[in-house]
Amino acid sequence: MAEGLPPQVPVSKYCIEIADVVAAADRIRPFVHRTPVMRCAQLDALAGKDVELFFKCELFQKTGSFKIRGASNACLAVPDAEAKKGFVTHSSGNHAQAVALACQQRGVPAYIVIPSNAPLPKKNALLHTYGAKVFECKPTNAARAAMAAEKVKETGAKFIHSSNDPKVMAGQGTIALEFLSQITEMGKRQLDALIVPIGGGGMLSGMAVVAKSLFPNIKVYGAEPAGASDAFLAKQAGQAAWKGVSQHPKPPHTCADGLKTIMLEHNWPVVRDLVDRIFLLSEKQIIDAAELVYTRMKLAIEMSAGTGVAVALSEEFQKLGHKRVGVVLCGGNIALDDLFSSLRKKFVRDE
Amino acid sequence: MAEGLPPQVPVSKYCIEIADVVAAADRIRPFVHRTPVMRCAQLDALAGKDVELFFKCELFQKTGSFKIRGASNACLAVPDAEAKKGFVTHSSGNHAQAVALACQQRGVPAYIVIPSNAPLPKKNALLHTYGAKVFECKPTNAARAAMAAEKVKETGAKFIHSSNDPKVMAGQGTIALEFLSQITEMGKRQLDALIVPIGGGGMLSGMAVVAKSLFPNIKVYGAEPAGASDAFLAKQAGQAAWKGVSQHPKPPHTCADGLKTIMLEHNWPVVRDLVDRIFLLSEKQIIDAAELVYTRMKLAIEMSAGTGVAVALSEEFQKLGHKRVGVVLCGGNIALDDLFSSLRKKFVRDE
Repeated sequence: MAEGLPPQVPVSKYCIEIADVVAAADRIRPFVHRTPVMRCAQLDALAGKDVELFFKCELFQKTGSFKIRGASNACLAVPDAEAKKGFVTHSSGNHAQAVALACQQRGVPAYIVIPSNAPLPKKNALLHTYGAKVFECKPTNAARAAMAAEKVKETGAKFIHSSNDPKVMAGQGTIALEFLSQITEMGKRQLDALIVPIGGGGMLSGMAVVAKSLFPNIKVYGAEPAGASDAFLAKQAGQAAWKGVSQHPKPPHTCADGLKTIMLEHNWPVVRDLVDRIFLLSEKQIIDAAELVYTRMKLAIEMSAGTGVAVALSEEFQKLGHKRVGVVLCGGNIALDDLFSSLRKKFVRDE
Repeated sequence: MAEGLPPQVPVSKYCIEIADVVAAADRIRPFVHRTPVMRCAQLDALAGKDVELFFKCELFQKTGSFKIRGASNACLAVPDAEAKKGFVTHSSGNHAQAVALACQQRGVPAYIVIPSNAPLPKKNALLHTYGAKVFECKPTNAARAAMAAEKVKETGAKFIHSSNDPKVMAGQGTIALEFLSQITEMGKRQLDALIVPIGGGGMLSGMAVVAKSLFPNIKVYGAEPAGASDAFLAKQAGQAAWKGVSQHPKPPHTCADGLKTIMLEHNWPVVRDLVDRIFLLSEKQIIDAAELVYTRMKLAIEMSAGTGVAVALSEEFQKLGHKRVGVVLCGGNIALDDLFSSLRKKFVRDE
């Protein structure tokens, strides 16, 4: 299993190994979609000579993002007696929806703490679509964590972190199990490289454990906005200095709002050892790449998913000469008000 | 073949029959994608109790719309000696791209007449991506037709109309051949109803011939913007009055810009006899439906494709009680400037 890896970092030394991901895949199979892998000749041409890009379409996943994989695994791995007290998280984003749906599917309560400035449609989706119990708090990290801790204490429910949790990491790792099998099913030689967006790092580290265990020669890369570069900085600084740098040097600012989270201790060792490199992207690169995905592939991705595409299209990446490149389109939850309000202004008012 | 049809309208009495569509499918197979059929549980729930919607994703077709099917068929059906002179069309939309690509694939010249007010990116795509020869004319129907006729005369190239051409109709009919096979491959009972957007009617009539030939009990419905209602009015008035009403009572005005075309004589008899009903949609219905497709299915459709979805979600349609409903998402070519310029304004200027 450790073939091709430095002998000092056997894959089994991390908080998860591939067996955990295989178990997660069995556990969550009835509750998640096996999302398709798509191709696009026009993007291939932009990615360099003879390059084939393979897009893992987690935007088509239940709840519109990969997060349901980790949330389902965390929720289903708990015995009935404990699970029936429910689960708590704090998030206004994809992880909140994922925990809410995972709880609904298991028939247990979900307690979701959201900042008071979260958009109303998100709150309503949590309440009405997924039947979660929603609690508003002040829009600060401290207030969110405090109220979540309070809910845990009050209800006996279990907290599920969006990334710093081995069960969540194993759940997200199932993307790699599926993706690499699908490449084989397509009759293709295996990928040279995988590009995965990184916020908290649950998806990147889960997928890295799988890819490096099964195919040690696959390069695994993170895609991170320059405006939320904690993982890049941590990797640059190395382990010793990690605790000091694993925070955003200034408040994160990026259109890729799913990637503002900080990488914490469960993900760090995997990112340190098994991720070959983290690429930083400018906002322009992310938005340009996302626009290409909309216009050429006709996929309505969220900006976080633009980061992986932006890496594949960057000169820096193309210099590495990878020919078969997998990119995770991690989600499609994005506010499209600007598009639709302008259409309505132009056409509906005439009626 | 005519089982289930009124005996006075055997399917073979139209300008195409199913054999023409089968021949088209064989002819164009190497040059077009077999597009996927997608499902969406959230849209099923909005479409009524126990309703299953099946979406034929022609937005993923080459050139971003179904039009390549008809254009390829028209282009490939011509013998070499004639084809080498090339093909002419006038259009600023999906049909222009389709003719340009079909000609490029056959290695013959494409002469595309576009109105001088067509968006620059469309012109550039025609010129650079597909290598067409592009000619600008005044933005009127008369000027377009006149310049196209002139190009035919000058070059000896053949004119391909966007809908009023049996070869184009047969090409578009291949959508139905594929779609109905895919339903069977999915292990489903065959569709009760097909909903197809109508502009000039090439897609609707091509698909109607196939559906009614193979499964006479399938209902075939057209989806037309109320702001471009010529086909609805023609059907309402009936054959005798057709020539009088088959024009827009006032200039068409709709966000579904692909559907502004007029239905002409080749499509009319099929629409008259084999299309069960045409539903008219308000701009609000079309835009609301498209927004649902973006937010729930994560598909970046053009507004024309919103019409079919809007029919499926309408009370009027739901009263009919169809349970397995096929909807063609006909294309994904839409200007997304409002979305991306606002993202750029918000994020890129900080860099």
